[in-house]
Amino acid sequence: MLRPPAKHCRNCGTPVVMRLPDDGDTKTRAVCPSCHLVHYDNPLNVVGTVPVWGESGQYVLLCKRNIEPRFGKWTLPAGFMELNETTAEGAARETIEEAGAQFEMGEIFTLMNVVRVGQVHIYYRARLLSDIFEPGYETIEARLFTEDQIPWDEIAFRTVKETLEHYFADRRQGRFGFHAFDIT
Amino acid sequence: MLRPPAKHCRNCGTPVVMRLPDDGDTKTRAVCPSCHLVHYDNPLNVVGTVPVWGESGQYVLLCKRNIEPRFGKWTLPAGFMELNETTAEGAARETIEEAGAQFEMGEIFTLMNVVRVGQVHIYYRARLLSDIFEPGYETIEARLFTEDQIPWDEIAFRTVKETLEHYFADRRQGRFGFHAFDIT
Repeated sequence: MLRPPAKHCRNCGTPVVMRLPDDGDTKTRAVCPSCHLVHYDNPLNVVGTVPVWGESGQYVLLCKRNIEPRFGKWTLPAGFMELNETTAEGAARETIEEAGAQFEMGEIFTLMNVVRVGQVHIYYRARLLSDIFEPGYETIEARLFTEDQIPWDEIAFRTVKETLEHYFADRRQGRFGFHAFDIT
Repeated sequence: MLRPPAKHCRNCGTPVVMRLPDDGDTKTRAVCPSCHLVHYDNPLNVVGTVPVWGESGQYVLLCKRNIEPRFGKWTLPAGFMELNETTAEGAARETIEEAGAQFEMGEIFTLMNVVRVGQVHIYYRARLLSDIFEPGYETIEARLFTEDQIPWDEIAFRTVKETLEHYFADRRQGRFGFHAFDIT
């Protein structure tokens, strides 16, 4: 599921050659034989929130996906981090885009490596200021769920499922931590 | 300091056009008029360690840079995260490459957004198993420093300086936390 390497130079369009660069780098890269640009492919960050509602945060907001992959499955609001934003700003942007929610950002909550797809997923807690949502085109429906109501078998991604599990486990303990782990 | 956008399609080499993609995306991207590939530029992760030595972790390993930028300045071992590795694996790889150190990886310690350059920096604590180092070509010298000995005015990057400051502050408190913040 990693992106295929570049076939042409992003600078001059010349077909690239896969080889070790001349600078001591030990990894094969797409190198331009004309302008000598070295092309690097690196992991991408996915940023999102766990938006919660209710005086003890007993409700979590999930979005039913209107896009592939996992069309029709439920997810937390999240998406690719962009340039010119922090991880928290990206997470807030996705929460507005996908759920049309009003909220206050909270602390960083999970960081998950998903090596298979070359991604790092980072979630923040967020406190909803309203239970009225105006989801964007990527979302069929945005809805609040208690732990018992969550459609555990219909969650779109393991990162989302594990983040939700940590949320409810921490909530039971009355103390929210930060959880960094790998999704294999 | 952000990378310039692609001028040519990475798939077919055709000159790209900067425009809104057709999929509802709200950001201008480099779009190929021939094969229609949309090119995304996203933040990069830099991963590294705070390698410590001594029974109370009173020594920190710094590397004197043999490369630009900041040639001759001191840094913690760190570099760009690659595909096919986790953040911790990347941090360990850089510590081996730049310092030739032997160590046990510890917990995630800092996460810093550096929006100006489109980067997220992540450091792990690491416990050195030896005080003998075999630095690679990127490093002039690898050396242990106590807090008082650290060349604070000769530190290569603010991310490194702030990570070191958090390390010694947490060490004084006898408890290491996780610190997420922005470098403006």
